[in-house]
Amino acid sequence: MKALWLQDKQLELRTEIPIPEPPTGEARVRVLQAGICNTDLELLRGYYPYGGILGHEFVGVVDSGSESLVGQRVVGEINAACGKCHFCQTGQPTHCENRTVLGIVNRNGAFAEYLTLPIENLHLVPDSVSTDAATFTEPLAAALEIQQQVSISPNQSVLVIGDGKLGQLVAQTLFLTGCDLLVVGRHPEKLQYLAARGIKTGLVDAVRPRQFDICVECTGNPEGFALARQALRPRGILVLKSTYAGHLTIDASSLVVDEITLIGSRCGPFLPALELLATNQVDVKPLIHSRFPLDDALKAFESAQTKGTLKVLLEMSSL
Amino acid sequence: MKALWLQDKQLELRTEIPIPEPPTGEARVRVLQAGICNTDLELLRGYYPYGGILGHEFVGVVDSGSESLVGQRVVGEINAACGKCHFCQTGQPTHCENRTVLGIVNRNGAFAEYLTLPIENLHLVPDSVSTDAATFTEPLAAALEIQQQVSISPNQSVLVIGDGKLGQLVAQTLFLTGCDLLVVGRHPEKLQYLAARGIKTGLVDAVRPRQFDICVECTGNPEGFALARQALRPRGILVLKSTYAGHLTIDASSLVVDEITLIGSRCGPFLPALELLATNQVDVKPLIHSRFPLDDALKAFESAQTKGTLKVLLEMSSL
Ligand SMILES: [Zn+2]
Ligand SMILES: [Zn+2]
Ligand SMILES: [Zn+2]
Ligand SMILES: [Zn+2]
Repeated sequence: MKALWLQDKQLELRTEIPIPEPPTGEARVRVLQAGICNTDLELLRGYYPYGGILGHEFVGVVDSGSESLVGQRVVGEINAACGKCHFCQTGQPTHCENRTVLGIVNRNGAFAEYLTLPIENLHLVPDSVSTDAATFTEPLAAALEIQQQVSISPNQSVLVIGDGKLGQLVAQTLFLTGCDLLVVGRHPEKLQYLAARGIKTGLVDAVRPRQFDICVECTGNPEGFALARQALRPRGILVLKSTYAGHLTIDASSLVVDEITLIGSRCGPFLPALELLATNQVDVKPLIHSRFPLDDALKAFESAQTKGTLKVLLEMSSL
Repeated sequence: MKALWLQDKQLELRTEIPIPEPPTGEARVRVLQAGICNTDLELLRGYYPYGGILGHEFVGVVDSGSESLVGQRVVGEINAACGKCHFCQTGQPTHCENRTVLGIVNRNGAFAEYLTLPIENLHLVPDSVSTDAATFTEPLAAALEIQQQVSISPNQSVLVIGDGKLGQLVAQTLFLTGCDLLVVGRHPEKLQYLAARGIKTGLVDAVRPRQFDICVECTGNPEGFALARQALRPRGILVLKSTYAGHLTIDASSLVVDEITLIGSRCGPFLPALELLATNQVDVKPLIHSRFPLDDALKAFESAQTKGTLKVLLEMSSL
């Protein structure tokens, strides 16, 4: 089969990779479509040591390995857990100590014609959810993880920093809580998608210091972090939703004096994400920047790496 | 009156400072005894811009300004709040945006014969609590703040890093929750006080990585922070109980991947602290290293600055 292979910071479209056989307990999925995520770009830059097929945001059709699922459209949770460690036994498989992660850690990913995943990782896509929309299930679930970690109520003031792919999804999900939400970024043309939904938006220099109960940092750069920190009230919560190249330098004493909470946030729950898509409570259409066939995956990555690009999709096969 | 004055990183025992008149709403307290805290040492090193009388841990007798309190033994909360800002109006006076702080921010402190504080900051010391014990109310309350911020249950594994003044109080209060507690430090002679209470102790190199649900960092140095971070399980909570000289450099991406929570923790509730002292659930006697009359305050500070010294007390007047 064809697949996009990452090795030593180089991408290569390989055409003669064997179609994977699903091990016991796993299903094989014929990939329909996949999305390029900032994590893929970071893997390409070598921030994490991964070699193999990239890609973890996908929609596909089950091809073998599960009789009940064959022929059905699915999305898949990306962490394949061992089932035995402390985290698996306490219902936290995304933190399994022995996990592999689709297209990220020791497991071939979704920028390919086929992939395999444990059957329990797969979720049926409701008929009312388009394949385009379903491709956003994984990042939308990640956005919803915030609400698993922090309870957000209508009387709270919340700042989202970043108008990129992640910031857009985070903003849309937080808006549904009824909180007093402001989203800031550097791109009026992207902020307008949110403004059109009734969400308050502004440019980054509009943020007043020490006003927000909760700040969600979606940029992954130190300036975004600094802005989030200074925008927080004492006893505020800073959610780190993005990874960072290199280390951050923080004024830890000020965290103590202001009793700030910093919380890292990663993968989230798929079912509520699918539910939001099925009920049209979140609109991902404006987030699609462009689409490329798998054969043009290198061009797709060029596009995704261009500053300001939202989601770039790879189409593997047409149903 | 006599008082220990800090100006430009210099301590001076002044003898001709006027006895303060309590403004409306404040009481004047004749100080009996006060404790030297690491914050005092940091103020002396110039980490924060403060000039005036140092000291914030004290026991005294009300002298004027409150008819009902005159002659009674009291301790006092150190943050004097405005009563009007968002934090005052939402029951968080320790974060008042206009606060002064006894011996720390714009308010003369307790290393003096007299001080004044708002009447609502004062708490009667129960007869069963000795003046020595009551001198620890403020730092004990700070230790209890952790439990206001993080719910700690018996099935959780908790690591306290640091066997100094703060670590000792934190450890004793956390031990009462029934959690699976380990305290590590560099001083066997200090750890023994905790071991004698049945608390598990060890040297810092005994900490195994990724084992603890909660780590409380009480050392204020980057090595303590690094140890706390590596000792945490994914989804663990790192409580910063100490301020830091300069900035900390953190691996923010790992906080995201492991969904770690960092939480700064400062001043805490006085009433539960007094209750613990009144019921002998916490023993502060072993923490007293030495005591000096106010006249020897400079010697007292020399002693407090010596590595490994626990609490040094200043005695202002004998009852
Ligand atoms: Zn992703
Ligand atoms: Zn596991
Ligand atoms: Zn103190
Ligand atoms: Zn106030």
